[in-house]
Amino acid sequence: VIEIHPLAGIGEVGAAVDLASLLGESAGRGGLTPFAPGDVIVVTQKVVSKSEDRWRDLGSVVAGPEALRLAGITGKDSRFIQAVLDESAEVLRAAPNVLIARHRHGFVMANAGVDRSNVGPARQDLVLLLPEDPDRSAARLHARMGVAIVISDSVGRPWRNGVTAIALGASGLPSLLDKRGELDREGRRLEVTQVALADLLASAAALAMGEAAEGIPAVLVRGCAWTDVLPAAAARLVRPLAEDLFR
Amino acid sequence: VIEIHPLAGIGEVGAAVDLASLLGESAGRGGLTPFAPGDVIVVTQKVVSKSEDRWRDLGSVVAGPEALRLAGITGKDSRFIQAVLDESAEVLRAAPNVLIARHRHGFVMANAGVDRSNVGPARQDLVLLLPEDPDRSAARLHARMGVAIVISDSVGRPWRNGVTAIALGASGLPSLLDKRGELDREGRRLEVTQVALADLLASAAALAMGEAAEGIPAVLVRGCAWTDVLPAAAARLVRPLAEDLFR
Repeated sequence: VIEIHPLAGIGEVGAAVDLASLLGESAGRGGLTPFAPGDVIVVTQKVVSKSEDRWRDLGSVVAGPEALRLAGITGKDSRFIQAVLDESAEVLRAAPNVLIARHRHGFVMANAGVDRSNVGPARQDLVLLLPEDPDRSAARLHARMGVAIVISDSVGRPWRNGVTAIALGASGLPSLLDKRGELDREGRRLEVTQVALADLLASAAALAMGEAAEGIPAVLVRGCAWTDVLPAAAARLVRPLAEDLFR
Repeated sequence: VIEIHPLAGIGEVGAAVDLASLLGESAGRGGLTPFAPGDVIVVTQKVVSKSEDRWRDLGSVVAGPEALRLAGITGKDSRFIQAVLDESAEVLRAAPNVLIARHRHGFVMANAGVDRSNVGPARQDLVLLLPEDPDRSAARLHARMGVAIVISDSVGRPWRNGVTAIALGASGLPSLLDKRGELDREGRRLEVTQVALADLLASAAALAMGEAAEGIPAVLVRGCAWTDVLPAAAARLVRPLAEDLFR
């Protein structure tokens, strides 16, 4: 049995906060410590970014010509678009109220993951960036807490309505589970050979997180088995552009 | 807490099998009955297709010119490709050993979901098609069992390595959770307004299913809350082509 436990009482996260302590205390209050093999804490990008003070003040951003051009297409604030461009490797799509870009780490997301929502009336001109290096952020939490970590975010997708979740960062687990060479029950080679374990964990966690209104920014997933597999960072989940036959 | 319980002992599923009974008996043996509100059984497409006898014999398939052309590109059996084309609305990509197509129901998948693996030595020339109408298959199981149903399958994705899972069919739950108009904690309108609940359930279930070698074709997800929301079929998750800004 796999269990998904919400980590309650995280509250507002500021840069002064020690996120590893917050998460550990919440797990302790929930009777979930000590951690067991196969435990994974999934924590949203938003609280990790806040704990790393990844705010950017649009008041100090000057929009360049490309940001101004995209503002004309999207109807979005040109300074916000400049902040997105500063995080991006490529803009994939601009349309009224839509800007889809590839973050420099390879994540294809609305606004390259730069977030203007959920900031609060007093901070209207601040945007929240992704962690500088989400795998490193996950590795730091993993080292502090002694439990595997996934940093998750919501993403839209081609061909499908609604968001699911992906892993931006991970540590202590095999983000990509490689089954190449294994055989199925009838002895045929498996066709599906690589499983995006960290993305599955992010999506499972999203079931318990609900949306921002409920305010559950982290969960503990317990009982997920991956035996004798080397850990791999979430960067392994980003498909090299040259190999991307789905595009 | 959300729990994901493997449904053990399903065994080989043939067309003579009553899948609803099999699933119900397995849940009973696991002490999971009676079902509770918020329970969802996630069952793989493969066993649903087998229970509906969705085999097609390649021996009776004649490859047309387009199948022959794509066989030259992909190196796959031209009769297999014809079977894929017969299920597809459009071929998106053909490359050595790769054929990505949009199933007539809108699912973009390798081989349009037509499956040659896991068939067994005695049935080498049989392929397994998706259920004729996966939402209807889910509705039938739901009506028989009195528990919400998701029919899942593994899919590759643009930009990301490894497979995750999506819902091909669903009944008794809101496949797409629409939060438009809701506010977050600070009173701002939510930016993420539609959540692909049935796809999240399929991915969560995949954590407990492992791959074919382990042979867990169904799980019970317990404790997932969606209050006061009308059910919606998985067809709601297929994005109309004209609205697809991610492509």
